[in-house]
Amino acid sequence: MKMENLPVNSLSLDFLTEFLISLEKLENDRGCRGVILTSGAPKIFSAGLDIMEMYGKSAEHYAEFWKAVQEMWLRLYQSNMVTIAAINGSSPAGGCLMAMCCDYRIMAENPKYSIGLNETQLGIVAPFWFKDTMVNTIGNRATERSLELGLLYSPPEAHKIGLVDQLVPEEKIQSMAAAVMSQWLAIPDHARQITKSMMRKPTVDRLLTHRESDIQNFVSFITKDSIQKSLQMYMEMLKQRRG
Amino acid sequence: MKMENLPVNSLSLDFLTEFLISLEKLENDRGCRGVILTSGAPKIFSAGLDIMEMYGKSAEHYAEFWKAVQEMWLRLYQSNMVTIAAINGSSPAGGCLMAMCCDYRIMAENPKYSIGLNETQLGIVAPFWFKDTMVNTIGNRATERSLELGLLYSPPEAHKIGLVDQLVPEEKIQSMAAAVMSQWLAIPDHARQITKSMMRKPTVDRLLTHRESDIQNFVSFITKDSIQKSLQMYMEMLKQRRG
Amino acid sequence: MKMENLPVNSLSLDFLTEFLISLEKLENDRGCRGVILTSGAPKIFSAGLDIMEMYGKSAEHYAEFWKAVQEMWLRLYQSNMVTIAAINGSSPAGGCLMAMCCDYRIMAENPKYSIGLNETQLGIVAPFWFKDTMVNTIGNRATERSLELGLLYSPPEAHKIGLVDQLVPEEKIQSMAAAVMSQWLAIPDHARQITKSMMRKPTVDRLLTHRESDIQNFVSFITKDSIQKSLQMYMEMLKQRRG
Repeated sequence: MKMENLPVNSLSLDFLTEFLISLEKLENDRGCRGVILTSGAPKIFSAGLDIMEMYGKSAEHYAEFWKAVQEMWLRLYQSNMVTIAAINGSSPAGGCLMAMCCDYRIMAENPKYSIGLNETQLGIVAPFWFKDTMVNTIGNRATERSLELGLLYSPPEAHKIGLVDQLVPEEKIQSMAAAVMSQWLAIPDHARQITKSMMRKPTVDRLLTHRESDIQNFVSFITKDSIQKSLQMYMEMLKQRRG
Repeated sequence: MKMENLPVNSLSLDFLTEFLISLEKLENDRGCRGVILTSGAPKIFSAGLDIMEMYGKSAEHYAEFWKAVQEMWLRLYQSNMVTIAAINGSSPAGGCLMAMCCDYRIMAENPKYSIGLNETQLGIVAPFWFKDTMVNTIGNRATERSLELGLLYSPPEAHKIGLVDQLVPEEKIQSMAAAVMSQWLAIPDHARQITKSMMRKPTVDRLLTHRESDIQNFVSFITKDSIQKSLQMYMEMLKQRRG
Repeated sequence: MKMENLPVNSLSLDFLTEFLISLEKLENDRGCRGVILTSGAPKIFSAGLDIMEMYGKSAEHYAEFWKAVQEMWLRLYQSNMVTIAAINGSSPAGGCLMAMCCDYRIMAENPKYSIGLNETQLGIVAPFWFKDTMVNTIGNRATERSLELGLLYSPPEAHKIGLVDQLVPEEKIQSMAAAVMSQWLAIPDHARQITKSMMRKPTVDRLLTHRESDIQNFVSFITKDSIQKSLQMYMEMLKQRRG
């Protein structure tokens, strides 16, 4: 499954909707037991949530967008398929979340790439279920430090703290992902699926219980003047960099 | 305490019953403050739950067997004594569980030995309290990967992820276990016991709360045709290997 | 913020009261966004709870003392400021707790210094919120072993298990703490504070829910004859050492 929302695979509402439809199709296809998530964009796995969806829009739009982000997480984190992230580029914020939802993470050992939940750097806050997913992956203390500082890790650092499972030279990432997939598919689906659900259900249930209030939190946070201003400044900085 | 249910220390109903009686005696003997759990069988610490107890028997039998497995875990995980596992052989599934119940794990660094919860490899699923015990020992992410793939670790791998605390040459395992025991016995019993209970009680309480439903789950799972068939195939494979 | 309750920065009731007042002042000073916690005593960061407050006093005194210890933890663990521990000496028991409350821990790599929750060595037990704080910092298994054995770690050991984040030569500890502080202050306060609260609130809430019973537990434990005797023996040992 190659993500292509050029230039940087931003998770826009349209892209998330398409992503969910594609995932659903594969999920219902009995011939498909596993999926490799990778990027068709150069140098970037996914840039995370599309800032354009969080700036200058209506409360209704923000709510709809956030619901789609939740849905992406719920579907990907609980997928019945074996999910492997072949992280062939940088993967900040929501991109890091997608990678953490997978069963296994392989990253290209390119020193220009980085991965992490860097929300605080932009003055915003990763919601509790982003945090829970990271705690499940790298433990409480590493998560605390990562989130408070909004850290982006180089591939060797990410490997050291367990944010990715394996590093490979960039040209070998797809073949390695295929090899790892074979290993995972050797396990009987039924036993693996029950085990995965046992590991992840408590985390999923927390969001399901607080889903509505989580949407309300997001909307009231993102509509604050100070936050809108922060995002505007960030976007202008991005424009200047590109320009 | 040397386990001897030859050839492989399978945890049969009879063996578990004897084990519980022996443990109870030591627990009630005020002169006994610690116990070293090791194996009298060559090359194997314990092969885990006896598959013969899970195949072709009545629902009543499965329920009785499972209750004994729960009881073993409850008593060993909460023992008031210092418990040290001297893992002098392979230790899959229930054998790994017994080792994880101890306060400290020393493993012989023989490359032929392995340890882990490999249930999914046989198409079955480790119950939630096996999972909880492993999460308490090696953390959430290492447990997720271990259980989904049914991984068996070599001694150096097991040491690296914290599944065992220490490796020693095989001939030194008993003397090292005795030395470690002295270190643990230097701590006042009362303070150590309260501390151990504080660490483990929440995990124990989860099983106590769901004990009956856990038995029902096991019985309904193990009586499924597909599971019985998997176990039959596995036993035939074992026979061929031995033959 | 330099702690000076010579000779060893024992956490007496007076010292805790002063500490809380100073912390409160800084917390309310809008110009103060971060605090470096360090020691003015030679070779010791803090010796932890003052044993004199736990020996030969009234139940009312013990209750008042324990409430102050709780208050110190509640304020420091939830501080809105960036808190960095510059651990320039040994840091047993309550001293280790203070360090663990901070956002980041730097320790002088002097082989004579040690850090850890060593309560069981004295025959007493670290309360559940000391335990929770340690689990949040170094994980469940390392905490279990640390607390059951009352382990004190050398700087390299403490760094290896994640009890401290960084080691530096002793003469550079203050300059390094200042450098790290700059890094933390580069993050927008608001986003960092919400993130910190999200990470730590569940742990704080556990004590708030059980605050009264925790005080009662402490009082009934510390007034036991056997515990008073243990503390007396420990104090006599300390006197002989110093003498």
